[in-house]
Amino acid sequence: MGDYEFDAAIATRPNGGGRWDAVIPDGWDFFGIPNGGLLMCLVAGTLGPLTGHPDPVTVTAHYTARAEAGPATIEGEVLRAGRMLGTASGRIVQNDRVVAHVLATFGDLNARAGTTIYEAGLPDLPAVAECLPDDAFPGAPAIFDRVGIRFHPNHTGFVTGEKHGKAEIGGWMRFRDGRAPDPLALLLFTDAHPPAIFNSPDVSFGWTPTIELTVHVHKRPRQGWIGGWFETPHINGGFLEEDGLLWDGDGDLVAVSRQIAMLPRPS
Amino acid sequence: MGDYEFDAAIATRPNGGGRWDAVIPDGWDFFGIPNGGLLMCLVAGTLGPLTGHPDPVTVTAHYTARAEAGPATIEGEVLRAGRMLGTASGRIVQNDRVVAHVLATFGDLNARAGTTIYEAGLPDLPAVAECLPDDAFPGAPAIFDRVGIRFHPNHTGFVTGEKHGKAEIGGWMRFRDGRAPDPLALLLFTDAHPPAIFNSPDVSFGWTPTIELTVHVHKRPRQGWIGGWFETPHINGGFLEEDGLLWDGDGDLVAVSRQIAMLPRPS
Repeated sequence: MGDYEFDAAIATRPNGGGRWDAVIPDGWDFFGIPNGGLLMCLVAGTLGPLTGHPDPVTVTAHYTARAEAGPATIEGEVLRAGRMLGTASGRIVQNDRVVAHVLATFGDLNARAGTTIYEAGLPDLPAVAECLPDDAFPGAPAIFDRVGIRFHPNHTGFVTGEKHGKAEIGGWMRFRDGRAPDPLALLLFTDAHPPAIFNSPDVSFGWTPTIELTVHVHKRPRQGWIGGWFETPHINGGFLEEDGLLWDGDGDLVAVSRQIAMLPRPS
Repeated sequence: MGDYEFDAAIATRPNGGGRWDAVIPDGWDFFGIPNGGLLMCLVAGTLGPLTGHPDPVTVTAHYTARAEAGPATIEGEVLRAGRMLGTASGRIVQNDRVVAHVLATFGDLNARAGTTIYEAGLPDLPAVAECLPDDAFPGAPAIFDRVGIRFHPNHTGFVTGEKHGKAEIGGWMRFRDGRAPDPLALLLFTDAHPPAIFNSPDVSFGWTPTIELTVHVHKRPRQGWIGGWFETPHINGGFLEEDGLLWDGDGDLVAVSRQIAMLPRPS
């Protein structure tokens, strides 16, 4: 893939016996907390090729301890290498703790075709040129230096103090260094926006740790900007959902995501 | 739990070394195919108690081979037993093949509270008395003898030949033998409706095998009927999503689900 930051960030080196040396990279964090999507990419990028299938189709990560930038070990194994799909399991170990457990199924997204139906439609995100410049985010977290986001013009109110009043956030994403989006990158892109609840009028938020993230990839994206839209339709029981939708410049759905996170207790 | 069918169906017996004897039960299938939600319950019901936490919070199953009614072995281990959450991994082995891999995190749904916001609202399912009788489904699959469903009056058109024209299906669910719904039962209930795409006007369906199912549980349900609503908002790339929502008689969201399945290739 050439010398792109993303590929360097998720590179791992086999160390024998189902182990790989990795480094959780600096510069892909939200204020010091490594991006959960990037952790997912570390495992999926390492184990996918072993299943004999090129693309992640469905990947789930459970985040069990706080990660930090620095050396880590990937452990994993292929659970099944089928004709159409292959399944693998893996984990990231850092400082003798597992920080993420991953279960993933891979396939060939170009092998299948057929019906396309979007009953729910795709989100109404203004064209790239009508969104905010991708350096418009004051005090932006480090990951925005890698993934440029052109936010919906009304969706950065949680920064400016004028929330648009709904737990939703959308924007167009691309790697700043020109790397093309691919199914692996989509796993990262589903977790690259600030949390949608930041725009909720009713939530005084704190740190909302993700318990689990699942991404389904439907299509290899066309090169160019990737549209992203994230909503939190349900908050209760001390948990929040965040549902995400990614599409490409052809207007094709390329991935959906859902995560569950702990809502901070009322103080 | 007394002598209820569901508890008997998912009972397992420890066999040492992280193994449990189980039986994939007859009578919980869709035309011979064991219910994927029930397989999830077999693993979650066995491993949850080992984590020290009472309730499933997020459970993911990857279905890697076709299961059948009959003896099986559960294998599993606790990955982390934390103070607030515990994570476990398990699988169902039958005839020397793994039919399902499960990754699950457990917690105490009564331990947390706080804000409740349903931005998207809850589905508009008519009251139980206005739905169809739960024996109204001609040629019903075996599972409907265990889980009674009072379907939305317009949502069984795929049987009568008059589809209402959208990939959605809803109904009220309960165990016919009076067992109370609980978080474990919700895992089953998210997979007990016929597929929502059966009501799509544009899909000539065949067998659509689930690749992966994830369920998030938010609340211990109130006793009584559980509302369920399932939609397939996106079909493309040869895959379909099905998103589910469950709520209880208090009008509280109790669980959400999402699965990805293979769309049959056009013939």
